[in-house]
Amino acid sequence: MQTLRNIDELRTWRAAHAQRTVAVVPTMGALHAGHLSLIERARSEADVVVVTVFVNPIQFDDAEDLESYPQTLDDDIIACSQAGVDAIFVPPRAEMYPNGYCTFTEVVGPLSSTLCGASRPGHFRGVTTVVLKLFNLVQPQVAVFGEKDLQQALIIQRMLSDLHVPVRLVVAPTIRDIDGLPLSSRNVRLGEEGRLKALALPRGLDKANRAFADGETTSIKLVEIVYEELLVHPGVEVDYADVVQLHNFADVTEAKAGDLLAVAVFIDGVRLIDHILLGGPALAVVPEAD
Amino acid sequence: MQTLRNIDELRTWRAAHAQRTVAVVPTMGALHAGHLSLIERARSEADVVVVTVFVNPIQFDDAEDLESYPQTLDDDIIACSQAGVDAIFVPPRAEMYPNGYCTFTEVVGPLSSTLCGASRPGHFRGVTTVVLKLFNLVQPQVAVFGEKDLQQALIIQRMLSDLHVPVRLVVAPTIRDIDGLPLSSRNVRLGEEGRLKALALPRGLDKANRAFADGETTSIKLVEIVYEELLVHPGVEVDYADVVQLHNFADVTEAKAGDLLAVAVFIDGVRLIDHILLGGPALAVVPEAD
Repeated sequence: MQTLRNIDELRTWRAAHAQRTVAVVPTMGALHAGHLSLIERARSEADVVVVTVFVNPIQFDDAEDLESYPQTLDDDIIACSQAGVDAIFVPPRAEMYPNGYCTFTEVVGPLSSTLCGASRPGHFRGVTTVVLKLFNLVQPQVAVFGEKDLQQALIIQRMLSDLHVPVRLVVAPTIRDIDGLPLSSRNVRLGEEGRLKALALPRGLDKANRAFADGETTSIKLVEIVYEELLVHPGVEVDYADVVQLHNFADVTEAKAGDLLAVAVFIDGVRLIDHILLGGPALAVVPEAD
Repeated sequence: MQTLRNIDELRTWRAAHAQRTVAVVPTMGALHAGHLSLIERARSEADVVVVTVFVNPIQFDDAEDLESYPQTLDDDIIACSQAGVDAIFVPPRAEMYPNGYCTFTEVVGPLSSTLCGASRPGHFRGVTTVVLKLFNLVQPQVAVFGEKDLQQALIIQRMLSDLHVPVRLVVAPTIRDIDGLPLSSRNVRLGEEGRLKALALPRGLDKANRAFADGETTSIKLVEIVYEELLVHPGVEVDYADVVQLHNFADVTEAKAGDLLAVAVFIDGVRLIDHILLGGPALAVVPEAD
């Protein structure tokens, strides 16, 4: 595996692989089994796989969140190498955002102004901008993102389609830990107690989904079920819990199968997100109430 | 020459020329000798030349200006064919901006908020967005723009650099009519009298440039010289006249060689722009006072 530490090295590597199809897995590092599942999927989609590791400052609305984002580059390099990645691209911040940098790509409207977009102003503008930059650099045929960040994946799909970017997007399933919590780089910041509280998130979603299967279609009732699971715990703050249509993120009052129930919470100050598609399969692992 | 009337036709054509270098000349049609000079330059820069003709609605801040923009597609096709263009791409508006379209690319800051950016809100956002879309579709190695729209060219250069778009930008010199007026598709909307008034634009710029050569460096004085030429005519309204640094469009009070003196006017309601680089060569043709 090649470790490419600047744009020149990436371009040289890409030129040497001009005849190969490339799948890219964009990450912010702190790789876990969720990322490894994306890498595995990427290997099945193209000749060679590039993992990018870049903690993108412009998608953080909170300087403290940026500074405390876990960084484990040495481990990431080992993990990628063991996972059969062909190249890991770790660009310096000064090359991605040199002095005078001033170009941004944005998906406007409900897709990016609701849910996480409402609580993190500028976040998705930062995401779409860096993804477009990385695609222009890596020149992949395929990109693999996780369903875990579903709103992000849908926004990127919209950008690719609107701007005619010749990259095919693959959205791979969320990987959950054995206790049901979706894998996230932020999970390491949860203490043992925080982790137990966090399990209320997938448990609440699963309860709401079972209520939907039993005939409950009023969005506000489904959201209440999630709240009830979450708010019994001290130190849990709900950022949002909403039922929206999947294709345009418009709010719905009467839920239909395929609608998205999405939740973001702060657990002892750590922000976590999870979601379920109503009427979809139950979670493979449903956390028990503690 | 191939006339490509939709995105599918373009993609098929581009795939058939995958091994060739492509130069693109993006236009809004109503082609004149200025465009032909860009095409000639493009032919010297790559194996094959694509001209795009698309009146981009999202760069117009004024619906009337959009509707009255001259359209001469049949003539444009003949002109391109005679100029040795390999393909002309004329995408339908509904393919460029389908229902639900919501992605925009923008260069923020003084480069796009001053001069034309100040008087035409959203204009440059529309330009950068459509240029990026066209580049993603055509996949050129080179793009040729005119120095006539210098602010546009500098903004596009900034976007290409910031987003790492692998397209080389060539800025070709402004072509002027025999009377000194820079060629523009909008010139056809000037009457005979309007045209005479419009000549005050290059004449004023040239006078200011000569004053600069003679030692006048106070920006406001240089701008006054332009105003004096323009405002003797009824029906002439100055949109802006400014001296700015070329690299960042910051206003200057004391002009230096290489600074940009840029002017936009309405002549009987038709908007025209022109500029000069202070200390640069005199205009090849300097309009006589009428």
